[in-house]
Amino acid sequence: MAEPALTVLLAGRVAKLGAPLLRQHFGARLALVELQDEAAAGAQAADFAAAEVLIATRFDATLPAMPRLQLIQLPGAGLDDIDFAAVPVGCRVCNAFEHAIGISEYVMAAILHWTVSLPARHARFKGGDWSGDVWQPGGLRGELAGKTLGCIGYGTIGQAVAARARAFGMRIMAVTRTPRPFAPEPDWLGGYGLTEALLEAADFVVVACPLSAETRGLLGPLYLGAMRPSAYLINVARGPVVDEDVLFEALQAGRIAGAALDVWYRYPSAADPSPRPGHRPFHELDNVLMTPHCSGATEGLIERRFALIADNLERLLAGRPLREQVHPAAE
Amino acid sequence: MAEPALTVLLAGRVAKLGAPLLRQHFGARLALVELQDEAAAGAQAADFAAAEVLIATRFDATLPAMPRLQLIQLPGAGLDDIDFAAVPVGCRVCNAFEHAIGISEYVMAAILHWTVSLPARHARFKGGDWSGDVWQPGGLRGELAGKTLGCIGYGTIGQAVAARARAFGMRIMAVTRTPRPFAPEPDWLGGYGLTEALLEAADFVVVACPLSAETRGLLGPLYLGAMRPSAYLINVARGPVVDEDVLFEALQAGRIAGAALDVWYRYPSAADPSPRPGHRPFHELDNVLMTPHCSGATEGLIERRFALIADNLERLLAGRPLREQVHPAAE
Repeated sequence: MAEPALTVLLAGRVAKLGAPLLRQHFGARLALVELQDEAAAGAQAADFAAAEVLIATRFDATLPAMPRLQLIQLPGAGLDDIDFAAVPVGCRVCNAFEHAIGISEYVMAAILHWTVSLPARHARFKGGDWSGDVWQPGGLRGELAGKTLGCIGYGTIGQAVAARARAFGMRIMAVTRTPRPFAPEPDWLGGYGLTEALLEAADFVVVACPLSAETRGLLGPLYLGAMRPSAYLINVARGPVVDEDVLFEALQAGRIAGAALDVWYRYPSAADPSPRPGHRPFHELDNVLMTPHCSGATEGLIERRFALIADNLERLLAGRPLREQVHPAAE
Repeated sequence: MAEPALTVLLAGRVAKLGAPLLRQHFGARLALVELQDEAAAGAQAADFAAAEVLIATRFDATLPAMPRLQLIQLPGAGLDDIDFAAVPVGCRVCNAFEHAIGISEYVMAAILHWTVSLPARHARFKGGDWSGDVWQPGGLRGELAGKTLGCIGYGTIGQAVAARARAFGMRIMAVTRTPRPFAPEPDWLGGYGLTEALLEAADFVVVACPLSAETRGLLGPLYLGAMRPSAYLINVARGPVVDEDVLFEALQAGRIAGAALDVWYRYPSAADPSPRPGHRPFHELDNVLMTPHCSGATEGLIERRFALIADNLERLLAGRPLREQVHPAAE
């Protein structure tokens, strides 16, 4: 039997979900090693030393030395846990998207949850209440049609949400770092500097931008204060794009109608495996829908991402250009 | 002050919701009278005798005589409570749609409720559970993208649902009585005789056809048995399109995954103002979302319907053709 052509180290739950797909695709051509305990990487120093590819969402100088490393392949999109200064010279970094379908379905589920109130109407009628309130002036619900969706960031996720929202007759506003051709084109487009104008007009605000120096705390005292009292915020990007204290206080005081939060300010760690997800008690608020960073967690996501990753490994083996390469910026 | 040009009798909760809009539009040009008690119409026989227009969803021979009646204007779409044999010669009947926006939002809310499970995921995380189950092979959710929507009936409601579902990447199948140009065109189209083929393929089945001799009990033992065990049924048409016993037993036995039911087999009456909505205990099932015939109950519905009705009254006064006339069939 031939030697494996490539030695690959997998770290983290998403990477490990893809292992069966990589084994199915490559068979014995890959040597696949899973990192058993992320908090004790040092115990697998030999596996790091041998790895030519690392499939992981985190990379920094605390990991054991990886002298043979050619590629850091993220099984996700977010680059905020990659310390690019620590990436060895000659090693490339690629990320993977494919989450726009799942995340956009999550966002529309939240928007329709608030708009149609299906679980609440169901609970009441299941209890025997035929009340005609739903047909009274104050009981009639609003419609998505004609409402405004505001996208903070208009990459693959923002555009996927917008395509669905437009089919409901919603108006689309977006702010983005890099104006370029979009599908769908928003009805209104600005740079991040115009975020306030978007927030003043939006009925639903979707945060779907990368976390960067430019976007950290972007939605802080000034901008969250610009939101309508009837508006809802949905964060599927990274917690710190939205100032935690300002968000909590706006929700608590009812200065905005509600929020769906899938991304957080505190995550499980070895020292604290099950923390509350914020420094403030979001779980005590009645106008927050909260989920544990799973808006994109679909079967299709894993299939699509690891099809892309398998393609990238084939490209690496064949010496061809890689897909979704983010580092070095240009070769 | 001039005499009113037209005497209009309003019956039922939807008609009465529109009264302020008609008053605003017509001022003193209309004499608007509201029926106080539908179960005791005889007590207002003089109002019936004077009425030139009846705005109501029901009409039959038990109502007091209406010798001056020129128009029965439904503030809704369903014709199943109109006894056309009892309509006076020379009186026209028009209906009103405009509910496709609200109903299609309700349908997509139900589909996304089942697909994303937002309330259940929220409840678990609010309770402090960071469980990675959502990122395990069995915990990953499915996607709407690539799933099949089957529409029983493909009128304004079916097409509105399909337009939204297609933006999610769903495949559209439909059966209809009258094939004609549609927007959007479904991926697969048949007559009611091909309902079984649709049910065998659909992940979500939306019942959105008129109740007629052809559709009463259409989804009975044969057809409901053709549905996939993983499929969901959504009825926003009329209860009796779906056989009650067969539906209940399929849900109870888990032969289909679940149902969202907005239309029913028993409705409030003077004798029983708050009945359970079926002869079978749907409220005891865990896989049913149940609502009291309110899927289209939106603020926009009332505004759009009474804009249409105001236009029809203007047309009646001016002797011009009416919109959405359903009787007589052709003039």
